[in-house]
Amino acid sequence: MFSRVTKSVVPKVVHNRMLTVSIVRQTPKWMCYSTSATGERKTKRLIPKREEFASRHIGPRESDRDQMLAYLGYATLDEMIQKAVPQNIRLNRDLDLEECYDEHEVITRIRAIAEKNKIWRSFIGMGYYNCVVPHPIMRNVFENPGWTTQYTPYQPEIAQGRLEGLLNYQTMVTDLTGLPVANASLLDEGTAAAEAMGLCYRQNKRRKFFLSDKLHPQTISVVETRANSLGMQVVVGNVNTVDFANRDFSGVLFQYPDTEGTVQDFSEVVLKAHTNGTLVSCATDLLALTILRPPGEFDVDIAVGTSQRFGVPLGYGGPHAGFFACKTSLTRLMPGRMIGVTRDAYGKDAFRLALQTREQHIRRDKATSNICTAQALLANMSAMFAVYHGPSGLRKIADRVHKATAVLAKGLRDSGNSIENPIFFDTLKVNPAMASSEIRQRAKQKEINLRYYVDGSVGIALDETTTESDLDDLFWIFGGRTNLAKLENLIEDVDSLEGGIEKSEFQRTTSYLSHPVFNSHQSETRIVRYMKTLENKDLSLVHSMIPLGSCTMKLNSTTEMMPCSFRHFTDIHPFVPLDQTLGYRELFEQLEKDLCEITGYDKISFQPNSGAQGEYAGLRVIKSYLEAKGEGHRNVCLIPVSAHGTNPASAQMAGMKVEPINVKKDGSIDIKHLQAKIEKHKNELSCLMITYPSTNGVFEETVADVCQMIHDAGGQVYLDGANMNAQVGICRPGDYGSDVSHLNLHKTFCIPHGGGGPGMGPIGVKAHLSPFLPSHPVVNPLASMGKLSKSFGAVSAAPFGSSAILPISWAYIKMMGAKGLKRATQVAILNANYMAKRLENHYKILHTGLGGLVAHEFIIDVKDYKKTANIEAVDMAKRLMDYGFHAPTMSWPVPGSLMIEPTESEDKGELDRFCDALIYIRQEIAEIEDGRMDIGVNPLKMSPHTQQQVMRSDWNRPYSRELAAFPAPFVRHDTKIWPTVNRIDDIYGDKNLVCTCPPMESYQSPSVASEKVAAAN
Amino acid sequence: MFSRVTKSVVPKVVHNRMLTVSIVRQTPKWMCYSTSATGERKTKRLIPKREEFASRHIGPRESDRDQMLAYLGYATLDEMIQKAVPQNIRLNRDLDLEECYDEHEVITRIRAIAEKNKIWRSFIGMGYYNCVVPHPIMRNVFENPGWTTQYTPYQPEIAQGRLEGLLNYQTMVTDLTGLPVANASLLDEGTAAAEAMGLCYRQNKRRKFFLSDKLHPQTISVVETRANSLGMQVVVGNVNTVDFANRDFSGVLFQYPDTEGTVQDFSEVVLKAHTNGTLVSCATDLLALTILRPPGEFDVDIAVGTSQRFGVPLGYGGPHAGFFACKTSLTRLMPGRMIGVTRDAYGKDAFRLALQTREQHIRRDKATSNICTAQALLANMSAMFAVYHGPSGLRKIADRVHKATAVLAKGLRDSGNSIENPIFFDTLKVNPAMASSEIRQRAKQKEINLRYYVDGSVGIALDETTTESDLDDLFWIFGGRTNLAKLENLIEDVDSLEGGIEKSEFQRTTSYLSHPVFNSHQSETRIVRYMKTLENKDLSLVHSMIPLGSCTMKLNSTTEMMPCSFRHFTDIHPFVPLDQTLGYRELFEQLEKDLCEITGYDKISFQPNSGAQGEYAGLRVIKSYLEAKGEGHRNVCLIPVSAHGTNPASAQMAGMKVEPINVKKDGSIDIKHLQAKIEKHKNELSCLMITYPSTNGVFEETVADVCQMIHDAGGQVYLDGANMNAQVGICRPGDYGSDVSHLNLHKTFCIPHGGGGPGMGPIGVKAHLSPFLPSHPVVNPLASMGKLSKSFGAVSAAPFGSSAILPISWAYIKMMGAKGLKRATQVAILNANYMAKRLENHYKILHTGLGGLVAHEFIIDVKDYKKTANIEAVDMAKRLMDYGFHAPTMSWPVPGSLMIEPTESEDKGELDRFCDALIYIRQEIAEIEDGRMDIGVNPLKMSPHTQQQVMRSDWNRPYSRELAAFPAPFVRHDTKIWPTVNRIDDIYGDKNLVCTCPPMESYQSPSVASEKVAAAN
Repeated sequence: MFSRVTKSVVPKVVHNRMLTVSIVRQTPKWMCYSTSATGERKTKRLIPKREEFASRHIGPRESDRDQMLAYLGYATLDEMIQKAVPQNIRLNRDLDLEECYDEHEVITRIRAIAEKNKIWRSFIGMGYYNCVVPHPIMRNVFENPGWTTQYTPYQPEIAQGRLEGLLNYQTMVTDLTGLPVANASLLDEGTAAAEAMGLCYRQNKRRKFFLSDKLHPQTISVVETRANSLGMQVVVGNVNTVDFANRDFSGVLFQYPDTEGTVQDFSEVVLKAHTNGTLVSCATDLLALTILRPPGEFDVDIAVGTSQRFGVPLGYGGPHAGFFACKTSLTRLMPGRMIGVTRDAYGKDAFRLALQTREQHIRRDKATSNICTAQALLANMSAMFAVYHGPSGLRKIADRVHKATAVLAKGLRDSGNSIENPIFFDTLKVNPAMASSEIRQRAKQKEINLRYYVDGSVGIALDETTTESDLDDLFWIFGGRTNLAKLENLIEDVDSLEGGIEKSEFQRTTSYLSHPVFNSHQSETRIVRYMKTLENKDLSLVHSMIPLGSCTMKLNSTTEMMPCSFRHFTDIHPFVPLDQTLGYRELFEQLEKDLCEITGYDKISFQPNSGAQGEYAGLRVIKSYLEAKGEGHRNVCLIPVSAHGTNPASAQMAGMKVEPINVKKDGSIDIKHLQAKIEKHKNELSCLMITYPSTNGVFEETVADVCQMIHDAGGQVYLDGANMNAQVGICRPGDYGSDVSHLNLHKTFCIPHGGGGPGMGPIGVKAHLSPFLPSHPVVNPLASMGKLSKSFGAVSAAPFGSSAILPISWAYIKMMGAKGLKRATQVAILNANYMAKRLENHYKILHTGLGGLVAHEFIIDVKDYKKTANIEAVDMAKRLMDYGFHAPTMSWPVPGSLMIEPTESEDKGELDRFCDALIYIRQEIAEIEDGRMDIGVNPLKMSPHTQQQVMRSDWNRPYSRELAAFPAPFVRHDTKIWPTVNRIDDIYGDKNLVCTCPPMESYQSPSVASEKVAAAN
Repeated sequence: MFSRVTKSVVPKVVHNRMLTVSIVRQTPKWMCYSTSATGERKTKRLIPKREEFASRHIGPRESDRDQMLAYLGYATLDEMIQKAVPQNIRLNRDLDLEECYDEHEVITRIRAIAEKNKIWRSFIGMGYYNCVVPHPIMRNVFENPGWTTQYTPYQPEIAQGRLEGLLNYQTMVTDLTGLPVANASLLDEGTAAAEAMGLCYRQNKRRKFFLSDKLHPQTISVVETRANSLGMQVVVGNVNTVDFANRDFSGVLFQYPDTEGTVQDFSEVVLKAHTNGTLVSCATDLLALTILRPPGEFDVDIAVGTSQRFGVPLGYGGPHAGFFACKTSLTRLMPGRMIGVTRDAYGKDAFRLALQTREQHIRRDKATSNICTAQALLANMSAMFAVYHGPSGLRKIADRVHKATAVLAKGLRDSGNSIENPIFFDTLKVNPAMASSEIRQRAKQKEINLRYYVDGSVGIALDETTTESDLDDLFWIFGGRTNLAKLENLIEDVDSLEGGIEKSEFQRTTSYLSHPVFNSHQSETRIVRYMKTLENKDLSLVHSMIPLGSCTMKLNSTTEMMPCSFRHFTDIHPFVPLDQTLGYRELFEQLEKDLCEITGYDKISFQPNSGAQGEYAGLRVIKSYLEAKGEGHRNVCLIPVSAHGTNPASAQMAGMKVEPINVKKDGSIDIKHLQAKIEKHKNELSCLMITYPSTNGVFEETVADVCQMIHDAGGQVYLDGANMNAQVGICRPGDYGSDVSHLNLHKTFCIPHGGGGPGMGPIGVKAHLSPFLPSHPVVNPLASMGKLSKSFGAVSAAPFGSSAILPISWAYIKMMGAKGLKRATQVAILNANYMAKRLENHYKILHTGLGGLVAHEFIIDVKDYKKTANIEAVDMAKRLMDYGFHAPTMSWPVPGSLMIEPTESEDKGELDRFCDALIYIRQEIAEIEDGRMDIGVNPLKMSPHTQQQVMRSDWNRPYSRELAAFPAPFVRHDTKIWPTVNRIDDIYGDKNLVCTCPPMESYQSPSVASEKVAAAN
């Protein structure tokens, strides 16, 4: 009977694995062995494993796979892979990973790891604060695949929900900072500060930038790193005494309240700077701004910061959303994604990504920003936090925190300590009566973390979770001569306490968040309905496939997501002593080990928070390495013209000179051109940046040779990891010649896209590059390396980047195991080839490689239809919405094309439906070509179709309502996903930029007007 | 500045409370005190509490409340309540409850309580098994308000999602049991068995029933309890030797595999029983049936059991779904809710509750069943478990469990133990080599729970979570002379092991779950999309208000739901020793204390799993009490004709004679008629069952007098707790004369409806009744009472009912506190009165009470429109769907009416929209009355309108598409909730009963047929 098991839908992962264990020969067939490296699970598997996760992750059943292989003419997956992937780079062994765990074992295990972290109370501050994450938001946004699995809202017609959320975010940031324009969002406060510097430079081209010494240390570090390679000079010092008169500072950045907690009047600094043509940037705190005069009111040009404390867990450093706001005059220089209001084809208000034509998108080789990924999910959580609390709720929180701080200051003073801040919001710098070492000892006894300055003073930052007993404990730590009970007799009126903002010149007098959206969702019933309304406007992976080339929208499984909610992961401040984070250490070490085995690299840095940031970090590593070798003059970076747009931008930012390499008609690198360029730049060659498989979706045969050519010329190879999901278990960049790659954990390793972030772009390097990986001024991730570390600095505010989402990738690898990961890659390639073949009689498939096979994605060429039927890629993309699908990647890397990547998680049924949709669309195009359908008014040009439109009495199209909205049998009225607006007018929106919430339609009851209630009001 | 706090939207709960603390006088205004009874939070609240949960739970903001009160002509809520509630029953003090906790404190606290439970490994069996709850189902169904907050699917057009889920459940049960008809679902296995007995009696009217002594003890106990009051005689004995020849047994019930684990051939018993006109029922196990010959194949008439082990956590006894399947001939006698297939107005397949006219619904005073609530949410989870695993996955699980059991048996035998089961599935009865006491000691050492029989033998039940190391531990416990490593050399072929089902006569040879739905959702991507598709077909509280009179669809907050997922609550077997459940003990004690304070009762039993079961239990308590007093002859139960339908059914089942009491035209009890009935039945009067406020939604002034009259006549008062939500904090049944009530925790105390269950109907009693509360044969909840307990027996399979959802009600009370609870009641009454007043110029409001006020719900009379416009209540109900709303309660308790209960959680905006919808509908009716709209074809008669219909090219209605689907400004195309089928044809469905999945439309790709893939197949 057990022979059935091996024939079942479960992939033969475990059973094949068994054969590698020698003892198996004497064992009955139905026995399955575990060969865990941990030694914990040495027991024989008398009972076969419960469920193989790989069979849940991979879409097609075995029978489907056989059918698809037969359709392609192969007997087995291995046979197909041997054809598709060049022999000389193939890994001819299994990855050496731990035996896979099932979904429940993995949770037990990660929980045990998490619980090695110690949750002490942290009053460290420095940009990271404990906060109360509202449970309805946690469960209905963060833990809801309807919110986490959407793609970046490039198709606004099926993304109005999260676009509205992000517009709320921008409104919140502009209202609180007092500046008119904001984006949504940046990676963290440190990079937002670096982006501010970049903007200043773009504006006035001056190469000096002033940093206040009262900024958070990690902010200074990230800006310095960035300045360094941009060829800018950073001066750190006392912002009150800086002399701008030389008119050589592009900008100045200070912090308000500053890192030590002091609230200072910067009006004079601003005036001086402006007088001398220097732009003024201010790092600030959104919670403080609910009661503090906002930077926009003292003429600051740019405000940056983090919105973490608005309802996003600490998560040992991230992910959180960084914010960026500026004056209107700077809008078009602003980095990052901005949501704007525009109108749709019927003139109705609609939201979309605005100003996508700004610098980093077009001037790739002169970029001063490579920002791409945002922190959409976290920005949405923060915005929802503001919607949930409303202005009065936020102010109440701020009041509470501020008053508690005032009481703390009073009590500490009463015990003989002195407070260094004349005015403060929530943070104190204390000159303690006792020795700092004693304070440290007493704090340890209470399991409390404080900020210890080198000068012996101590920082304390309070937050919305602070309780009375916390204050009592703090009093005790600082001398024990006072306590709250004693204090309450002393305090008559908290408002008169020293250091208070109220009644001071700093008190905020302007209102904020007066838009109805922030004033009508304070009951849980309302906020839940609001979140559901937004969720249901958006297409996500819970509805249908999102076949984005190069963006890999695969399954993000529930089990992978679960540990992200564990409090032993969420409730840890990034700057706590390392001995409180043994759980995170173990997680990092295990994940690093696995990623190294998968890629062939020797060392991983988890610090970069996005793929583009990984690129930048990786190139900085190369640069540092060359400099250390005395070859600092090498600064040419060769990049094929088909590269990801961020590649040249990153190279430019890393201080390199970009030289493009041609690609041949078939999409592969033009080796002769490469050879010529190497020859030409031989002495200045820094590196080559390539993507593999290529951005055209092909396994080029020459990759190993290309790497060798670069090495022979003294250069390094940077391999863009975006397409790593076509290689895992099959070939390893570290084996065939690459020196460094970033890994898009949010693509290949299952971190969900979150509607446009978080991303995660760790970099892997060969051993010779490891001393040059990113460091950090507060918690050095390279500490174990000691003096061997020769880091170029920090790229992120947090030492280990977005630590809190690493359990997702860890769990994915642990559950898939070596066989599962390889199988996933094979099926990703199978799925792509199956679709390509189904479509080849209908569309022109560009760029196939060995054996006529593509890799994990493929491109269909649609540019001819512009001539034959006036149909462009965008029309097809919008028409796909009517069929219930998200469009593939449009016109990249080839103009007039669609790039389709199905991923391994989609099953044959879904692939077939998507192919059918494209085939139907081809037929619709044919009808236009044949003149059977109007060339101007047809379902393609008029797409997408909304309910409102299709249901109007005055429908007057030359095609039917049914063809408009239900164009295929699988588009069913009981399950259809509707676009909620008609086609967006991008040009109108960019011309008439509005990036905050538009006036809301009044939902006032129409009948109620005639009722007495109106009178009663 | 802090004075602002008290003026904010936060209810003045804490601030008023403060004033009761004497020390407060010397304290600054902004200080808030905690007066926790626990002593843990004695610290003064220097920092005001973070968030008041009450302001999140209660919908209207303070400004709305003021406006609504003004509209009604009152200055304050208190003033309104003084008018609405009779003076003589009002509680003129605050409830004495603990100071309220905020949402985050409450989680910390309940986690600490939960962690007092010890999670040992339990191999106890007895109907409860560990299982692996698939994470995607846990997160996307159990933890998703879109699945938990729906109402019972009485409005099928907006409930096709969960109806499909429940139909899957029925298909799963019928396929596995081999019987053609099943319901969805019953409360547990014990009550399902009792219902089987009831059905047998209904079929052949014989008053004897035979129970096998190899049934689970709790099954025997629940059936005996039920038989007792129905006047039936139960014989418990060896089912193989029973003599049916007297033809006096209505039925026989045995278990397969039996409670000790043995699989027996019952064919002869069945033949003997049938020969003598006795029906045959079989308690069975769904997992076993995947490899075991099903009862339907040896001619059993009825199969019952629990589906817990299909993916529902143990939860210390519940909630889980009980199942019930039978032969076609018994369909119309079957208890509980059944889903059936029918057609809609356009002839399309649709699902709905079938055969609603069966006995318990119509013959209320001759009922043998009062079943009403089902376990819809849990049935849906179990069905989804089957969809997720598919037939081959289920079989694999069963195989694994069975083989492990065979290996266990072999190993135990090898160590000198003997196994009492010749053939078994997953459970062994072991005659140990060692003394039972030693086994117990060794098991304790391993933290393992086993079943200890009184004869010294030991039961072991394995399940899908059993691992190899579990087996090794079990071997060790039973002698330690063997272990798996040793065993593996002995076992050549597990199939030949003694006791195996395979190759035996018991092997299942028939297939099951061949329907596509069970064979196409095995990848996580597919199951998640399937669950989302179903979720999105249904209207739930995440969309709009569900204003059901008497069903109280209030907010079920996230925080309340969270603890239900804590593993220290979910992973506990109900029969573990009490010292492993200290957390549950504490939870029960605290909740009991609070509920007693709220109701004025002295003792609570948590055992009843639904309101109706609570009624039954409460009446049995009264009966037992009277019997103990020597007044067992008292058996008349007076019930107003306006009572809930379950009241007379419960009374009948409790062995009482129901006497109806008239109500007056205004809906209040006819006191004269009551007086007369009391007089007439003075000597036989057992009790009165009343609902308060009345089912007509009125606070009758006479309630205290009525209670007194009953007591004076020697009777007891049963107060139906369905409307307790209009009393909490305002009046207490225990104060004004009631002796016992059930409490609908799923109404008043926030347990979500789950789309038709779980419910929870604990009963509260005055002290004199407490010795008579339900007991349990395995774990006695009254153990502390010792010999004082004089219980009538068990009403549920689990000793404490659905323990795992009690944290919901606990958290609600702890977060609301005394002030919050009272405020909720006040606002519930305010909301109802506001709506009534808004509607009074448009509709006739029936039955107002004191001061012209209603209680928490009200009735609008719509019967006249039948005459004036041919419009009935059902037309209005369906038309409301077009406006985006769920219908109120239809035609109950008054024919031709709608009963509306808004609850306190809905805010003014939502109330206004609902009123507007009704006002628009009234205008539509007026247009028919005026002849401006067709009397046959109008938006009311044709409602609800689906997408398919409104978008058809051939729309030919005399009204517009827009009027059909977007009849009000607040019905917006981007947020509209669509009915997915047209109006259901109930009659057709009942005439053509189909209660399993209909053949699925083929989703095969239409284009693919022309592709080569077809050939390749």
